Amino acid sequence: MKKMTAVHVYKGDIVFTPSPRGFQVHEDSYIVVADGKVKGIYYNLPEPFRDTPLTDYGNKLIVPGFVDLHVHAPQFFQRGMGLDEELLSWLNNYTYPIESLFADPVFAHEAYSSFVKEMLYQGTLHACIFATVHLESSKILIELLKNKEVNAYVGKVNMDQNCPDFLKENTETSISETYELIETYCKKPNGTASVKPIITPRFAPTASTKMLEALGTLAADYHLPVQSHLSETEEEIKWVKEVHPDYTTYADVYYHNGLFGQTPTLMAHGIHLTEGEQNLAREMDVKLVHCPDSNINLSSGIMPVRSYLESGIRVGLGSDVGAGHTLFMPRAMISAIQVSKMVALAVSPVRVLNNTGINRDSVPANPLTLAEAFYMGTKEGGSYFGKVGSFEEDYSFDALVVAEEPAMTTKYFSPLERLQRFLYSGSAKNIVDRFIGGRKINT
Amino acid sequence: MKKMTAVHVYKGDIVFTPSPRGFQVHEDSYIVVADGKVKGIYYNLPEPFRDTPLTDYGNKLIVPGFVDLHVHAPQFFQRGMGLDEELLSWLNNYTYPIESLFADPVFAHEAYSSFVKEMLYQGTLHACIFATVHLESSKILIELLKNKEVNAYVGKVNMDQNCPDFLKENTETSISETYELIETYCKKPNGTASVKPIITPRFAPTASTKMLEALGTLAADYHLPVQSHLSETEEEIKWVKEVHPDYTTYADVYYHNGLFGQTPTLMAHGIHLTEGEQNLAREMDVKLVHCPDSNINLSSGIMPVRSYLESGIRVGLGSDVGAGHTLFMPRAMISAIQVSKMVALAVSPVRVLNNTGINRDSVPANPLTLAEAFYMGTKEGGSYFGKVGSFEEDYSFDALVVAEEPAMTTKYFSPLERLQRFLYSGSAKNIVDRFIGGRKINT
Repeated sequence: MKKMTAVHVYKGDIVFTPSPRGFQVHEDSYIVVADGKVKGIYYNLPEPFRDTPLTDYGNKLIVPGFVDLHVHAPQFFQRGMGLDEELLSWLNNYTYPIESLFADPVFAHEAYSSFVKEMLYQGTLHACIFATVHLESSKILIELLKNKEVNAYVGKVNMDQNCPDFLKENTETSISETYELIETYCKKPNGTASVKPIITPRFAPTASTKMLEALGTLAADYHLPVQSHLSETEEEIKWVKEVHPDYTTYADVYYHNGLFGQTPTLMAHGIHLTEGEQNLAREMDVKLVHCPDSNINLSSGIMPVRSYLESGIRVGLGSDVGAGHTLFMPRAMISAIQVSKMVALAVSPVRVLNNTGINRDSVPANPLTLAEAFYMGTKEGGSYFGKVGSFEEDYSFDALVVAEEPAMTTKYFSPLERLQRFLYSGSAKNIVDRFIGGRKINT
Repeated sequence: MKKMTAVHVYKGDIVFTPSPRGFQVHEDSYIVVADGKVKGIYYNLPEPFRDTPLTDYGNKLIVPGFVDLHVHAPQFFQRGMGLDEELLSWLNNYTYPIESLFADPVFAHEAYSSFVKEMLYQGTLHACIFATVHLESSKILIELLKNKEVNAYVGKVNMDQNCPDFLKENTETSISETYELIETYCKKPNGTASVKPIITPRFAPTASTKMLEALGTLAADYHLPVQSHLSETEEEIKWVKEVHPDYTTYADVYYHNGLFGQTPTLMAHGIHLTEGEQNLAREMDVKLVHCPDSNINLSSGIMPVRSYLESGIRVGLGSDVGAGHTLFMPRAMISAIQVSKMVALAVSPVRVLNNTGINRDSVPANPLTLAEAFYMGTKEGGSYFGKVGSFEEDYSFDALVVAEEPAMTTKYFSPLERLQRFLYSGSAKNIVDRFIGGRKINT
């Protein structure tokens, strides 16, 4: 017997980015969703769908849900604090002491409940998440995400050296607990949501070679994705050289242990990469995660996004809460644009010298466009999860419905202008409905 | 007979900045307010006040209300849009066409109602506001502000050249309508709120010398404050030279017409000032208004705030909605800090060369501290209105009460850490009460 197909039609102003080159806008149109996947978008609804159940959102915007490729769940608790420090002192003075609280499952349950609830409220429907070194609380985080039906990769952090004793793991325990998490959640039936473990060494300086090697083996054996940090600050890079003198570069520390593209890999930051590291990232298809607010808040540096993109390196976006101060991914998009404009201002002499007029195409620091930033926070990030982050055929219907205030302005502006306003000036308050895989999700 | 004094006591975690050098924090303390003014702050409530009515806010924060020194009310309608343009094209493509809608009082009433409501909701209790060239809608804005009891200066914009015909004023009409507004609102009884006219030539290129001279005379005759724009972009400065070739500098155009410090003056931006202009601003006590988001969004440039402050120029903060994308003044504070950190990063070679270690004090681009940014958005801005923006004795009790989410975190962090989190990661949602001159205001 053929399985029945659940079909639903949604009507509204539909906007998404099939490519970073621009938006596709379908004003006052119908999107047909079958079994949670997009079947097509129509200005005139075709005959076969005329009796299909329909939700009419009027001139509300329908856009892909946001994808956060780098966020620390425990740091939600400390977001917006200690941001007058730089990375290594911020870790010691704020992050490590707070992460130690997650040894207590009761505390973890309360704190992670707030995090998951808020992430969903802010419109993030897919995320790659760092937990802490604690196995029990990592399990709690996974269960909470599954209950809320958010799709995510969750990493129990591995850290066995160069950190406070109250967080330092015994190498064997670190590996065996990671193994336990994998065994539990790669086999356990997943229900409707998809929440899976991801291999997560915190970063090279706090990882012994022995641990990195074992994690690389686990990643290969279970074909698990990998996430970590790379070249966030110059001080950190110097430290990596001291801690791992046998490797040529920071990226090499991961690469030679099977943790740099051998399985799908995310590396947060990657601000200060050598040319060799950039080539390696491109060849191994390692996705860098740009976290602009975090980079500014901790005075870490500015990722040369334009030049990475032009050279073919893939770059997604992360909130990096808590060094980033908000889970609202449009803020990461706008911050990426703002940072790239400041970089462009810094090279403005180039523009002035070009006395045929200001030709932005000739300027390497050419700022990010709104379409590029939106693409990074939806389809580029979504590609880590499959057909996610766009409304092309067969993409998962992971969508946000956005209403505006004051409503009077809708008659004056195009859907794209209204999307721009939501991204710059809006907030989670404007998100009135959320869909994951075609299911409407309650916040 | 002696007038009865209305006294009320509020209890909570009280934080403010008497100076830019740091916060004053009174945890779990009492603030005594008499006739709308602060009388004192006490950890133990003195005997005479033990029977005074008291509102206990627990561990909520009590902070001064925000002061926005530069905001365009009509542009609230277009905020967050067209921000991939630069100043002059943005004016022509977005701002001018939208401002023309305010010729219609019905439209103006609806749009300005949204603006005033939202500004108050976002915690701004004092503001210096640009309306449009239209007299009737400027009056509507004033009335709406008075009804909501927000304190403000409102300027009917003057613009008689180099702009689209649909906004261009006849010079005589521009002056006589400005005169009418002054006559109406400088004499009309003010009720509880204080909303007054301010002389507001849009900016030098769109003002004839004849008009500027007449406005300077009006300012002197009625001792009215002045607001305008100064040196926002390099293209604009070049234009001013062409339009007003008889003046040495952009600032001179205002100065020689009695519009640069002869009465209390605000100049928005002032990014690209000559040394002479900086000296003039300092000598004439002209307050510059830093609008960091606007400056980045329109790629205008970066104000060298640290060097201005060190040379004794006074600098407040503005949202500059619509080129700035939000009315929430903490965003202006954080953006000012972020921009100053990026400037510090740009000069990082200086830091690296200093091989005695990173000594931030030796770096001219030393980023703004949280206390400095908070001071700029409260007491520095407030000084334009009198004893406003602080909780020292005799200051007007203009206050926000801030609650946090999740409440569980209050037991882990100090009031200052919680204030930092509110400023970075919070929103208007966290503001539970607003007081102006001791009166609780309904949003």
